[in-house]
Amino acid sequence: MTLMKSWVESANDPDGWFPLNNLPYGVFDDGKGPRTGAALGDKVLDLAALEEQGTVPAAGFRGGSLNAFMAAGPGSWERVRNALTRMLADGAEERDRVAGALHHQSDVTMLLPFVVSEFTDFYAGRHHASNVGTMFRGPENALPPNWLHMPIGYNGRASSVVISGTDVRRPWGQLKGPNDEVPRFAPSRRFDIELEMGAIVGQPSDGPLGVAEADANIFGYVLLNDWSARDIQAWEYQPLGPFQAKATATSISPWVVTKAALEPFRCNPPRREKELLPHLRDVGPMLHDIELEVTLEPEGGTEETIVRTNSRELYYSSAQQLAHHATSGCPMRVGDLIGTGTISGPERGSRGSLLELSWGGKEPLELAQGGARSFIEDGDRLTLRGFAQGDGYRIGFGDCTGKVLPALEDPYS
Amino acid sequence: MTLMKSWVESANDPDGWFPLNNLPYGVFDDGKGPRTGAALGDKVLDLAALEEQGTVPAAGFRGGSLNAFMAAGPGSWERVRNALTRMLADGAEERDRVAGALHHQSDVTMLLPFVVSEFTDFYAGRHHASNVGTMFRGPENALPPNWLHMPIGYNGRASSVVISGTDVRRPWGQLKGPNDEVPRFAPSRRFDIELEMGAIVGQPSDGPLGVAEADANIFGYVLLNDWSARDIQAWEYQPLGPFQAKATATSISPWVVTKAALEPFRCNPPRREKELLPHLRDVGPMLHDIELEVTLEPEGGTEETIVRTNSRELYYSSAQQLAHHATSGCPMRVGDLIGTGTISGPERGSRGSLLELSWGGKEPLELAQGGARSFIEDGDRLTLRGFAQGDGYRIGFGDCTGKVLPALEDPYS
Repeated sequence: MTLMKSWVESANDPDGWFPLNNLPYGVFDDGKGPRTGAALGDKVLDLAALEEQGTVPAAGFRGGSLNAFMAAGPGSWERVRNALTRMLADGAEERDRVAGALHHQSDVTMLLPFVVSEFTDFYAGRHHASNVGTMFRGPENALPPNWLHMPIGYNGRASSVVISGTDVRRPWGQLKGPNDEVPRFAPSRRFDIELEMGAIVGQPSDGPLGVAEADANIFGYVLLNDWSARDIQAWEYQPLGPFQAKATATSISPWVVTKAALEPFRCNPPRREKELLPHLRDVGPMLHDIELEVTLEPEGGTEETIVRTNSRELYYSSAQQLAHHATSGCPMRVGDLIGTGTISGPERGSRGSLLELSWGGKEPLELAQGGARSFIEDGDRLTLRGFAQGDGYRIGFGDCTGKVLPALEDPYS
Repeated sequence: MTLMKSWVESANDPDGWFPLNNLPYGVFDDGKGPRTGAALGDKVLDLAALEEQGTVPAAGFRGGSLNAFMAAGPGSWERVRNALTRMLADGAEERDRVAGALHHQSDVTMLLPFVVSEFTDFYAGRHHASNVGTMFRGPENALPPNWLHMPIGYNGRASSVVISGTDVRRPWGQLKGPNDEVPRFAPSRRFDIELEMGAIVGQPSDGPLGVAEADANIFGYVLLNDWSARDIQAWEYQPLGPFQAKATATSISPWVVTKAALEPFRCNPPRREKELLPHLRDVGPMLHDIELEVTLEPEGGTEETIVRTNSRELYYSSAQQLAHHATSGCPMRVGDLIGTGTISGPERGSRGSLLELSWGGKEPLELAQGGARSFIEDGDRLTLRGFAQGDGYRIGFGDCTGKVLPALEDPYS
């Protein structure tokens, strides 16, 4: 596929994130209330206005979330995408009617694009699981015995999901180092990022789901940063898993890139070291070739890239994660957010967390601008970016960014 | 406190669950749509009807959940309780106006009383944690090192919470015994109950909470059965905790017993073996003296009691659990459900799960009617009950019951 030309000129930049091929959905506010928009070049197309005009099929665009549109189902997703593609294409007759519904992205505020029903975070990146396992349990026990047989995940906290741009306050928590006699309650000193993708469930289910069915129920994808307090986690996680270490915030990018836009970028999973059980077996190319990066900008410093990797480094696809999630009969709902887990590549510069980049703090990451990082320092801004590279166009996700504020002086004052 | 007499005669039975002292809230439907009611004797009082009449302060009783009433806050909770207590008391002037809003409980269907925002399950019973720890890791490692320093919990799955009376289908899952070379996908053979209480968050928070504040934010309590597939759990839970083992269903009792009704039954926690950090320290009697039991009724058999215990066996109160939950800044919302974890007493007959009662299947529980149980068999009905014993009255919770149906023959057909 090549660039689809639009009469919105800024959408035709081959290095831009939002060509007509993309058309991601988000929720914006220009002061007149939150509603659904689609990104195109440097513009937002007001879908609520088009719905009111009758220019696009009605799909709940006037609510403040994408949930109604997602619930409307794949037929509706396709009709709306086809209608938008037609009316925004170079030479479209509808140009005059539609032009009035375009706003500059810089004139609007982006809001959380959907009501997060529940948030689940997986651990589906093999390099990440191996790196963390090696640090915690030694190289011979790096991967837990179950890891190659199913996507391992845990339930996270939906209330803590925030839109890109939200500041994140360093949490307090119970900490106990291996040599401390008793724990203490203090601000986390090992606060970290996790570079992830998030899949959004667009259709409900109420029983086990095959992998192809699970894929069909996914509406789209966002970038996701699962902020993590490694020192809180180390003391709390046995035997029931991470809890407060992961509950401060999880940031997501404002635009939901649809599964449809990512179709040309599907790719196969890695070779399966252990044969998967039939219900989890690959039924086609379910991963995506998406270039990912993380930048760090110290307070008063400059932004520099600290990670480059690709989402094809995942071992299990989001579809496999969702299929596993439903095995027990667990009801899945519109708006469920499913994080992939940290996406790390094989080389040091492709590791998606500071824990891995600094090898648990033992090998601090040197910054090009001077200074070094073992974990996040107060005032640091961390930004995730990602795009799929097509032939003369890119499918971009928009920034997923957050700045870390100092911990509260006394959380109980 | 003694029995408060009501003009609703059935509320004056000293062994009844719903005297005027109780007034728990639930959501019922008599065919005219779901709305809020209060239980009194064998009746349900239609609060939506009273709200329409202007007989009780308006508090969102016409919606199909308690969330609006909970969100209205402690002032509203108190005004409504005071108004109901006055108008239902023996000799009340309002009797004629109110009598028309009473339905027989047997004429209505009870529905899930609130929209469960998120569900968290703790592990706050010491006997349970020690029993399970002994079985899994030996007596010397029974309690994890963190256990005496903070309430350990994990995020569960809100979408799987069901109202008492809902059948529960035995789940399939990935299973691997210690001697199996590879895992298989099969129906769980070690499906179990967990006898718990659930606290319902009635006020939102957006940062750390002290224990007294946390207690103030709790609206009320239900009985909770966290159905658990022990064989799925054993294979999946390392390193991120229980996931599909706990996602099939969690049943709750239909009536939310308010914190106000339980005030006379507050009791102190056990002696603290390790001093708690200041933010988790006890600030008053935060546990409750509530008698609990579980019965088992085999298909075609008779109901018999298999567990008797008391909620004062908990080590951490729901207020302490909620305070810990908020330490990281985790936003808590109206409708969050917080399970205590299994409540076991020190003796065999007081253990709140079959895993403990049968010591992992090694000592099957003999039934009085003949037969034995290591874990739940298809067709078994399990019922939790609980009440606080006052002077001439009881504060009861209503049944929390569910029957286990056989696993699907082929979950992917």
